[in-house]
Formats: sequence, structure tokens, C-alpha cells
Amino acid sequence: MNDASEKEEQTNTEESLQHAIETSDGQHVAEIVDTITSQEALRQVSKMESDDRDLLVSMLEPETAAELIEEAPAELAIAMIQDLDTTVAAKIMEELHTDTQADIVQELNSESSEAILEAMDAESAAGVRKLSQYDPDSAGGLMELEVFSFPVGDTVDSVLNRLIDDEVFERHRGQHPYIVDEAGRLVGVVSLRDMLRSKRSVALIDIMHVPISVRSETTQDELVALFDENPFLGIPVVDDQGLLIGAVSRIELAEAELERAEHESLSRQRTGDELRSMPTLLRSKRRLIWLSSNIVLNIIAASVISAYEETLAAVIAIAVFLPMVSDMSGCSGNQAVGVSMRELSLGLSRPVDLFYVLRKELGVGVLNGIALGILIGIVAWIWKDNAYLGLVIGLALSLNTLIAVSIGGTVPLILKGVGVDPAVAAGPLLTTVTDMAGFFLVLSLASLFMPQLLA
Amino acid sequence: MNDASEKEEQTNTEESLQHAIETSDGQHVAEIVDTITSQEALRQVSKMESDDRDLLVSMLEPETAAELIEEAPAELAIAMIQDLDTTVAAKIMEELHTDTQADIVQELNSESSEAILEAMDAESAAGVRKLSQYDPDSAGGLMELEVFSFPVGDTVDSVLNRLIDDEVFERHRGQHPYIVDEAGRLVGVVSLRDMLRSKRSVALIDIMHVPISVRSETTQDELVALFDENPFLGIPVVDDQGLLIGAVSRIELAEAELERAEHESLSRQRTGDELRSMPTLLRSKRRLIWLSSNIVLNIIAASVISAYEETLAAVIAIAVFLPMVSDMSGCSGNQAVGVSMRELSLGLSRPVDLFYVLRKELGVGVLNGIALGILIGIVAWIWKDNAYLGLVIGLALSLNTLIAVSIGGTVPLILKGVGVDPAVAAGPLLTTVTDMAGFFLVLSLASLFMPQLLA
Repeated sequence: MNDASEKEEQTNTEESLQHAIETSDGQHVAEIVDTITSQEALRQVSKMESDDRDLLVSMLEPETAAELIEEAPAELAIAMIQDLDTTVAAKIMEELHTDTQADIVQELNSESSEAILEAMDAESAAGVRKLSQYDPDSAGGLMELEVFSFPVGDTVDSVLNRLIDDEVFERHRGQHPYIVDEAGRLVGVVSLRDMLRSKRSVALIDIMHVPISVRSETTQDELVALFDENPFLGIPVVDDQGLLIGAVSRIELAEAELERAEHESLSRQRTGDELRSMPTLLRSKRRLIWLSSNIVLNIIAASVISAYEETLAAVIAIAVFLPMVSDMSGCSGNQAVGVSMRELSLGLSRPVDLFYVLRKELGVGVLNGIALGILIGIVAWIWKDNAYLGLVIGLALSLNTLIAVSIGGTVPLILKGVGVDPAVAAGPLLTTVTDMAGFFLVLSLASLFMPQLLA
Repeated sequence: MNDASEKEEQTNTEESLQHAIETSDGQHVAEIVDTITSQEALRQVSKMESDDRDLLVSMLEPETAAELIEEAPAELAIAMIQDLDTTVAAKIMEELHTDTQADIVQELNSESSEAILEAMDAESAAGVRKLSQYDPDSAGGLMELEVFSFPVGDTVDSVLNRLIDDEVFERHRGQHPYIVDEAGRLVGVVSLRDMLRSKRSVALIDIMHVPISVRSETTQDELVALFDENPFLGIPVVDDQGLLIGAVSRIELAEAELERAEHESLSRQRTGDELRSMPTLLRSKRRLIWLSSNIVLNIIAASVISAYEETLAAVIAIAVFLPMVSDMSGCSGNQAVGVSMRELSLGLSRPVDLFYVLRKELGVGVLNGIALGILIGIVAWIWKDNAYLGLVIGLALSLNTLIAVSIGGTVPLILKGVGVDPAVAAGPLLTTVTDMAGFFLVLSLASLFMPQLLA
């Protein structure tokens, strides 16, 4: 499909949806949403004004709306549900997976979440209240409340019959049948193989294994390690009394990992979870928070230049190279930050590896510092026809490259070691220090070689 | 565990491993690897010299080595296998999942991959050769060759017996039993529920459904959309004759998505898939490729400053603010790039949404431009005690913020539209243009207000 016809088709979908919403033609809205992919539907929803979005969501069957919300990024999911009529919102909430319900309740303001919970059926509401207490990055926050569990007195027959009858069996994807005692404590797990191998009258207690389980406070990282070591698709979660309270699936975990990777990459850009469908003022405010703190860092770095205004005035050509040295050192340092962030997230580096990382970065830093220094030195020499200018700029960039990769490589490990998120803090720290060092090196070396520069 | 004791334990593991390798104590090596997590084992492996790494991998059972390689990032996986004795490498290869085998063969140089394939058993080798023809981002590249399939003439009994007997059933995680005709064409799929509901003597043909399947060339994005719309855990892959050639699992796809997200974030840092275990010269070279092209972009931007050296010489205080305007505009622009990259990867933006994005960015750009312009203007005014300097710098940053967010928001969509990877190209393009525009705005406004600036 070429761009023009794609554009036309997009516009048609958009216009028909808009028209159907304006004329309150709920059936047509449902038909359109049904013919497009959920991704395309979410794209349309994200481009709508909030009133239209609320109308559209209200016109859909609760199941359809819930399916869209399950696929939506968190912020859009909240936006789709927060201003709905409470009864409508509650009906949609009841159709969501329990972990999505909990995520939404945690994000809504307490007043509207309370109103929605009141309107939901009591059992679902109790489940959400329970789940939303857990840290979203823990097994408690990642688990589903619905477990595929059986009393210890049951037989193979009862499990196989549930497999046949249970309409929501798909929801238990990856869970093995978990066995609980009278008090609800997890005591065993049975495999499909063992059940098929046994007579239907065999008691579960006779073929069950000791289950591997996690506690609700088990962290996402620990879960990743556990699923890496073991082939299973789901793992049961127990509380501190050993009661079975939920299960985490490999798929849910993989999706959480994907979200975390995206979040990490966003933290570095300082846009958080902004979507352009959010109100302009909110977007502006959130971006300004980081930008205005960045101005302060910039002023600190620029004060180094200000201290050398006499040197600059004498050799004005240096002003051309200050932003270059600052930018090039920033790039070198950010490469080192990038490698450290990746090795940290892959588990290949830890805070204790500081000196290993420093040694490895210094190796690259010496090579790249020399190469870049020579390159920029030659440029400066030829451009301004002054060999000493080349020497000053080249030497400054060489040394600052070494500083930049050393800081860039180690700062993420140090931040992680002291419990600060390196994705947020490493970049600004690096840039400020390398800017200051770069400006200082260029200008102090220029002061040193002033007679030769003016010759 | 506190830092000191963690460090000690790490050192112990490292030293015992080193000692066991040096003394060729294979049993002790295996014991140590067995007691630590695979992530910790990979961390140790990645810090080793290549000779020690090869010795360690050779000392492990092929199954254990294969498990580690399955969990390793691609580059480390290659490094762990490429210099091994061919027979040892082949034994390990035979234990890997078919998709990992294909990934490794595609990365090895043709000589060593050929030697390893020769040493593998003929059937596995043929499978790898077949798989490695597919694009890694397509269903063909993501699928497993092992499928859980049955001839159309079989009965429920034969499937249930295979479920009981098949040791590698875990490998088929998520696959339903697929039914093929005499020619090997995919003709149906049966569900566990339907089988449990039926007598064992029932023919599969009587309870099978029409399967949803994909072609080997189906893209990763299309697969994501398909799994989003449907609850199944696996999907069969057919060739253009309809022959069943493999299956893609939801888990494999989720892992590929995670890798892609990480890769995208890395593309922006220009470090590719570097790990510090790679040779220093290679790391230096790969980083320099981007850095040296960045120097060229910097020279282009700096040439704007060079054209205004007279203005600069007259008002040297401006030199202090040039890097600030450049850095601040870069940050604003990168925020817009970040939001566009995210909306593109979430499917909420497409190249056709250019004007919507531009409109949304201009809204934020006007607000943030005014705010930042006033902020930096006041700083410049007070710092250098010159209201006109404040006006020049503030006005320049305001206008350049507007330029930066417009370019930052739209360039990723334009690049995507013309088929260039925005993660790679958007950042450098943005920085060069905003630097040039920023320098030009500051210096040309300064020329305009020269009398007042010198007053």
C-alpha cells in the first residue's frame, strides 16, 4: 500500500469513527472497532479529544473495551477509564485481568477508584483491593489472583473435568494444577503427564510433587532468574503463612520486562510516560521539570567559560571549538554509560565490578582519545592555520575523552550501588562533569600556550 | 548482604573458578557452575580472558554449556562457541534450541559455521541450514522447527500417549497438537479440552478445528498484533505450499520484543551490542565509527560560529551561552524524539500522523520556549548585567526550542516513512540542525543588537 492510499484509509476510519460517535451510533462504533486491529483502535483513541474518547469507550461492550484497555500503555488505559460514568467503568473493570485492575486502581485518584470499586461486584473489588497493596515490581504485583487449584483430597478425575468444563481455562495459561490443603496452603503440584498416566480415580496426593513457589515480595529480578533456570510457564505465589494467593506467568513477566526496558530508555530521555494525547499543559510541565534543572547544570558548566573570558577574548577561535569538545566528550561518555547500563540490566556487571569496568574503559579511552584528539587537532590547525591551536584543542579532547569514558563507565555502577536509578541520574551527571572538565582543559591549556597562540 | 561481604563472595567464586580452570579440574568447574545462577556464571564468563572462557565451556557437560548459551546475550553466546574445538562446539550446538542454533550460525564466519555443521548429526545440521535462511525478525527466524504434530489419521489416544511419553514435551510449550495431511500440509489443530472430552479411539479429524497459521515471512510486528488479538500460546508456521515447517511461541516472541527494545535503546547510544568482554581494539573501532562521523556534524555546526567571530570578539560574554543554548535545545528536541520513538513503537503514531504530531509539539514548544527563554534571559541579564544580552539569549533559546521540538517530534516519523531506522538517525540529525540554528539565532540576534550590547 502506498503512502497516499494508506493516508486515505486512515482518514476514512478516523472520519467514520468520529461521525458514529457524534451521532451516538453505538452499533456502528462497535462495527468499526471490530474491523480494525486493537493497535489501530488504540491509535485512534489516543488521537481523540477526551470527551469523544469517553463516549467511544462507553459505546463498546464492556468485554471489547476491556480487551482494548488490556493492550493499551498504562497511561492511555487510565485515560480511557478515569472519566467514565462509574457504573460503566465498573463493568469494564470486572472484565479486566486482576493484575490490570490493580495497576489501574493504583494510578487512579483515590476518590474515583473508591467509587468504581463500590460499583463493582464485592468479590472482584476485594481482589483488587488486595492486589493493589503489592509493589508492582514484585511477585505480588505481577501475579494473577485466579489460580488453577484443587483441594488435596481431589482425584485426577476432578482436575481433568475442570480442564474440560472451565471456560476460563485459557486464563490459567501455563499454570499447572496446584494442590492446597484445608487451610489453603500450597502443598503440591501435578503434571499433565502424570495425570494422563494415572487412572482417573487416583488421588492427587499420590502423584503430586513438591512445588517451587515464590513469596509475594519476591522481586522481578529474582523471578527472571528463577524462570531462566526452570522451564515452567507459571509459578505459584504464597504468603508468609504458605497460603496460595496467586500465580505469576512467564508471559506476564516477559511483558513486565519489556515495559521496564522501555521505561529505562525513556528515563534517559526524561519524557517519562508521556503520550501526545495528554493535555498540553501537563506535557509542558513534565518536560520543564527536567529542562529547568538542566539549566542549572548548564550554568555550573558555563561558569568555567566565564572564568576564562580574557583568554577567550585573546583567542576568539577557541569559542568555535568549545561546543565541539563538549559534545564529543558527551558522546564518548554516553557510549560508556550505554554499555554499563546494558551490562547492568543483563546482569553481566555489578557495582563490585567497578575496577574491572574502569580498566576496560581506560583501554578504549586511551585509543579513542588519541584518535579523536589527532583528528580534531588537525581540523583546528588547518582551519585556523595555527599548529598550537591544534595542539591545545587536540590535547584537551584526548584528555577529556579519557575522563568521559571513565566517568561514563563507572557512574552507573556507583549509582546502582548506592540505590539511585542510573537511567535517570547518569546522563546529567556525566554531561555536567565532562562539560566542566572539557571547558577547563581547553581554556587552561590555551592560557598556557597563549604566547604561541597569538604568534 | 552488605557490599564488602558480597564483594568477598564474588572474589571467591572468581578465584575458585580460575584455579579449577588452570588445574584442568573439570569436575570442580562443573560443581562451581552448578552452585551459582546462570546469570552469575555468565557474568564470570564475560569477565574471563578468551582462552579461559574456552577452557571452561569445554569442561562443562554439553547440556550445561548449552543452557548457559541459551541465556547469554547474542554476542557472548557467539564468543563462547566460536573458538571451541569443532567436535565440542558441535556437541553443544546439538543441545541448543533450533532457533538459537540458527542465530549462532548466522553470526559465525562461514568457515567455522561450516566446520561445526559438518561435525553435527546430519538431521540437526540440515535443520539449522534451513532455519538460518530466514530473516531473524520474521516468523521463519523466530520459529522452532520442533513441532508437536500428528498425521490426520491418528486418534486422540496417540496424542495423549505422546504427551505421556515425550520427554521433550516441555519444548513444545504452548503448542497445541497440529494435524498434518499425508503431504505434511497443516490441516487442523485440536485442543486439550476436546481430547479430554472425547473417547481415546476418536479420530483427530473428527474433533480438529481450522488452525490459524502464519507464513515464514510474516513479520515480528504482524506476529505481535496476532498474539495481541488471540489468546493462544503458540502459532504454527507454514511455507508457501501450506506445509507445516515450525511454530512460533508467545514466549519466544516476547523475548524477541525485549531484545528489540534493548537494541533500539542501544542504537541511540551508538554502542551497538558491545560487551566489555570484547577485544579492546574492536570496541574502540566500533565506537570510533560513530564518533568520527559525529565530528563532521560538529564541524558543520561550528562553522556557523566561525562565520560570526567578529560578533563574538565584540561581545565575548556570548561565548559562555553558546554551549548552553546548544545543550538546552538538544534536550528539548530529544524529549520530542523520545515521545515519537515511543509512540511509533507502541503503534500509536505512524508516518501519516506528521501534522498531528507537529501541532502537538508546537503547543508544548511555545510554552516551554517562553519559559526557558525567560529563565535563561534573566540569568544572562543578571550575570553580565546587560538587559539586551538577556533579550538576545532568551529570544534565541525560545525560538530554538520551538525549532528543536518540531524537528525532534517529526523527524522520527519522516525517517520511518522513508525506511530509515529512526533510532539510529534521528538524534544526530536533530543535534546538528538545532546546534546550527541555535548558534545562528544567538549570533545574528547579537549582531542586530550590537549597539545596545556594547552600550
